[in-house]
Amino acid sequence: MKVGLIGLGRMGFNLALNMRDHGHEVVAYNRSPEKIKEAEKEGIKGAYTIEDLVKKLERRRIIWLMVPAGDPVDEMIEKLVPLLEEHDIIIDGGNSYYKDTLRRYEMLKEKEIDFVDVGTSGGIEGARHGACTMIGAEDEVFKYIEPLIRDISAENGYLHTGKNGSGHFAKMVHNGIEYGMMQAIGEGFEVLEKSQFDFDLKEVARVWSHGSVIRGWLMELMEKAFEKDPKLSGIKGVMHSSGEGLWTVEEALNLKVPVPVIAQSLFMRYRSEQEDTFAGKVVAALRNEFGGHAVEKN
Amino acid sequence: MKVGLIGLGRMGFNLALNMRDHGHEVVAYNRSPEKIKEAEKEGIKGAYTIEDLVKKLERRRIIWLMVPAGDPVDEMIEKLVPLLEEHDIIIDGGNSYYKDTLRRYEMLKEKEIDFVDVGTSGGIEGARHGACTMIGAEDEVFKYIEPLIRDISAENGYLHTGKNGSGHFAKMVHNGIEYGMMQAIGEGFEVLEKSQFDFDLKEVARVWSHGSVIRGWLMELMEKAFEKDPKLSGIKGVMHSSGEGLWTVEEALNLKVPVPVIAQSLFMRYRSEQEDTFAGKVVAALRNEFGGHAVEKN
Amino acid sequence: MKVGLIGLGRMGFNLALNMRDHGHEVVAYNRSPEKIKEAEKEGIKGAYTIEDLVKKLERRRIIWLMVPAGDPVDEMIEKLVPLLEEHDIIIDGGNSYYKDTLRRYEMLKEKEIDFVDVGTSGGIEGARHGACTMIGAEDEVFKYIEPLIRDISAENGYLHTGKNGSGHFAKMVHNGIEYGMMQAIGEGFEVLEKSQFDFDLKEVARVWSHGSVIRGWLMELMEKAFEKDPKLSGIKGVMHSSGEGLWTVEEALNLKVPVPVIAQSLFMRYRSEQEDTFAGKVVAALRNEFGGHAVEKN
Amino acid sequence: MKVGLIGLGRMGFNLALNMRDHGHEVVAYNRSPEKIKEAEKEGIKGAYTIEDLVKKLERRRIIWLMVPAGDPVDEMIEKLVPLLEEHDIIIDGGNSYYKDTLRRYEMLKEKEIDFVDVGTSGGIEGARHGACTMIGAEDEVFKYIEPLIRDISAENGYLHTGKNGSGHFAKMVHNGIEYGMMQAIGEGFEVLEKSQFDFDLKEVARVWSHGSVIRGWLMELMEKAFEKDPKLSGIKGVMHSSGEGLWTVEEALNLKVPVPVIAQSLFMRYRSEQEDTFAGKVVAALRNEFGGHAVEKN
Repeated sequence: MKVGLIGLGRMGFNLALNMRDHGHEVVAYNRSPEKIKEAEKEGIKGAYTIEDLVKKLERRRIIWLMVPAGDPVDEMIEKLVPLLEEHDIIIDGGNSYYKDTLRRYEMLKEKEIDFVDVGTSGGIEGARHGACTMIGAEDEVFKYIEPLIRDISAENGYLHTGKNGSGHFAKMVHNGIEYGMMQAIGEGFEVLEKSQFDFDLKEVARVWSHGSVIRGWLMELMEKAFEKDPKLSGIKGVMHSSGEGLWTVEEALNLKVPVPVIAQSLFMRYRSEQEDTFAGKVVAALRNEFGGHAVEKN
Repeated sequence: MKVGLIGLGRMGFNLALNMRDHGHEVVAYNRSPEKIKEAEKEGIKGAYTIEDLVKKLERRRIIWLMVPAGDPVDEMIEKLVPLLEEHDIIIDGGNSYYKDTLRRYEMLKEKEIDFVDVGTSGGIEGARHGACTMIGAEDEVFKYIEPLIRDISAENGYLHTGKNGSGHFAKMVHNGIEYGMMQAIGEGFEVLEKSQFDFDLKEVARVWSHGSVIRGWLMELMEKAFEKDPKLSGIKGVMHSSGEGLWTVEEALNLKVPVPVIAQSLFMRYRSEQEDTFAGKVVAALRNEFGGHAVEKN
Repeated sequence: MKVGLIGLGRMGFNLALNMRDHGHEVVAYNRSPEKIKEAEKEGIKGAYTIEDLVKKLERRRIIWLMVPAGDPVDEMIEKLVPLLEEHDIIIDGGNSYYKDTLRRYEMLKEKEIDFVDVGTSGGIEGARHGACTMIGAEDEVFKYIEPLIRDISAENGYLHTGKNGSGHFAKMVHNGIEYGMMQAIGEGFEVLEKSQFDFDLKEVARVWSHGSVIRGWLMELMEKAFEKDPKLSGIKGVMHSSGEGLWTVEEALNLKVPVPVIAQSLFMRYRSEQEDTFAGKVVAALRNEFGGHAVEKN
Repeated sequence: MKVGLIGLGRMGFNLALNMRDHGHEVVAYNRSPEKIKEAEKEGIKGAYTIEDLVKKLERRRIIWLMVPAGDPVDEMIEKLVPLLEEHDIIIDGGNSYYKDTLRRYEMLKEKEIDFVDVGTSGGIEGARHGACTMIGAEDEVFKYIEPLIRDISAENGYLHTGKNGSGHFAKMVHNGIEYGMMQAIGEGFEVLEKSQFDFDLKEVARVWSHGSVIRGWLMELMEKAFEKDPKLSGIKGVMHSSGEGLWTVEEALNLKVPVPVIAQSLFMRYRSEQEDTFAGKVVAALRNEFGGHAVEKN
């Protein structure tokens, strides 16, 4: 198929190559032109303006957004709308909040432009060689783009999750689970590392990747990480987050679903971004007040 | 190799078949004789007493215990000790607490009997077709049994984790991580299930098993579970536990490692075994006292 | 002062008596007229319609809302606006979400009606005999109502927390802390209750109320609760919640403040409202899949 | 009564003054003689050796230990035993682990020396002017020392909790609750401090101390702490711990009581003592592996 791709970041660039490898004709736009030039060297057709990109596509146009969640998606849609025609398709392949997706879907519906949300997992490697994709779309629209989706996904790795919004919702929850799993792995390795034994952590990650109950891609990546830096001594334990974990917890709070593990994973991320905490000062001050326990001075 | 196997439960029986398939000669004992007979039909040599089992092995004997953790291991070792000779090897392949393992190792060391702890992961399927094994042992002893270990393990799926105790320690932590991962998965699916969308949970588990960041064996099993019972309506959410999660948290507490996720996983298991909680009564009573909020009567 | 009070629920009724005792002239309205009649017997002037209530007050009118948070507040304000005059004052003494308060303040500002948020703590007893009040208001407005506020508050128990919204914000956080404290108390008593010792829980609550670090009103209420029902056997441990704990956690999530304790308190409340959990079913199903561990059937 | 007091630390010294004020004759010993001299200036009789202390008491001797939990208690008991006579009484007023207390009780029972565990709460001020005391003792022994206990306790502030060990057990749980309460307070103030409003935290602590649901000694101390340092900018948020919280969690784990709040309080303390975490490095490394997310280098 012919597809316009907007956004040549880590994920977008690799997705473009993935599409190309499967025989799709990709026209790509990016805010900074360097990336477009790089893409052109890879046999991808460049477009240096949005207008140009739209012009280079034929109806029923498919435009795949791979831009950061939030305002950039709204801005891009705003630019596209006047250029598109009835039933052209905009696909948001980023990590958008599903409530934004629902809002955009309603807005575009009124303008008779079709909208699809694709939650995309699998990291950079997935984008390049076969991702896990969760698609929220109307049936007819999904059917139309299915050949493209199938090709860029891992074998057996795509699902029409339901109506619009469900794709990004599923991806949100996927990431919530991911937070919990990663924190569990982190806690486990910290116990090993502090223990009385002298574990070779890379080897532990290796053996746990073969035949164990907890085997999976994260454990395989763990082995790779320890291979590069056996004690992770070169990096800091600061864990940033980009929204999906937060949204999962907010969603759970409103659905009254207890999510202690996902929430704690998020709190430990926030905590890792703090050098010191006000809560800690409060507790230290209280201990000093009632028991005369020494406080550490700043 | 020739190996005496004690304990033909779910794990032990499948391990015996696994050993047999790789050309090892297994002599098996079990408390209840029915299981021995079953094993005999599978080409495994039966022993109806411990004495008989030991007699059917030659020096340097290898005896693999696959009995429940705790007293059964001590009782079996006590019975074996007078029957064994110098440098015969007892392997504890169960989920023993590593501190018990250290104690048993010291005790057997004095009697010049070699002791090995094998943490075994991979469930029944792993026991049958290739487990993940973590081995705590002296170097010489490990070398001696390595051919057997290699054969029963998944490809690339065994590791000499270090000195005695380290195998069971690694397995303990593995299970702690497992608790956290499973709780994270549970929380995620509960959010999906309660959401405004109409997810086909089996299909979600399927797609997450292909190409996603959280792909792995647990997710594949999730697909199987939903295949049998799409809403899990036939089962109760009671989550029992058998010790390793508890020990991981205790270990972490003593090493001063924060393990919020593993601990919460454990608490949610305990909570699932309670019909009502005294803590809840206390909070309900307090809310009633200060705010007149209605309590639900028993 | 003369004050119109809307809402004669548990909190409102007692607040009216409290105002009356301090020599304020209270005109009270309530949706159901029975409560108005009851109030009249207590020397409070009844108003059977909103219009009547407003008519019975003189400028600069003070109208104190003590109605459930959410829509009821908006509905009442909508009814009042056309009846009020410039710089009349509406006080929201309920547990409104501070973002609603900010919205209402902006809206009323345009109509030149003054708005005040009063977070009120201390339960029914506080409303009756001296509450803890946190007031978000413009300086001039606060000064105007301060004599009334001072009279209904406990000695030293009121604070102009800052600009509009801050009163309800402070109350929200107060309740978040309250959730955490109550859950901590609940957990502690559950440990006592399950222990090998035979504690008289009422006596423990009594002694902890005198001289201990954790002494305070909640512990005193605990003694009262155990006095009525020594093992709390008559009540269920279902812990409902009315929003402030949820909002505190949401606020913390957005401010990136780790609030593990407040969040867990909330999750345990949600959990107490569930008979069974889907997350639990997922974990039970997984344990069955990999280890053949028995599940409990529905 | 006449009582020998061993240990003139912050708690012991003030307890001695407290006893003296109530007309008890205190003979005090301390490892470093300076403190004994200080005590002598306060009208307390000094003893510069254990032998001297014992000699200065008459049968039925009462010896109150106020030394750090753990080995110091065992060492002191070991020194005392040969010097004491039948049914002399040793009181352990420190924060000993109740399992140690049970062990010591059994051991002293055999030597016909009476042993009492007194859990003491209320901090330094409590020790000086009236503590909260929880006493584990045989009935006859409790009766014998009750006049002394009554005098040093706050009004209504002592309880014979039950048989030996129960006093320290109750104090352990008390401290577990204290951990949870303090963390809840800390979290709440951190939300206030990071909020869009400009709260005067000292004033908030003040108002919450009067009439609110969460009023109590901790909140009063909070006001004092903010009075000295309005933003706690002079101190670090490092929260040390001395065992009781840990023991409460361990006890709960073994009783299968979910204690999410107390456990999280403890984990946040441990976390505050870490500059960086290995768990955090693991998560950061994983995020980098799959998504190319930047890590912060050491």
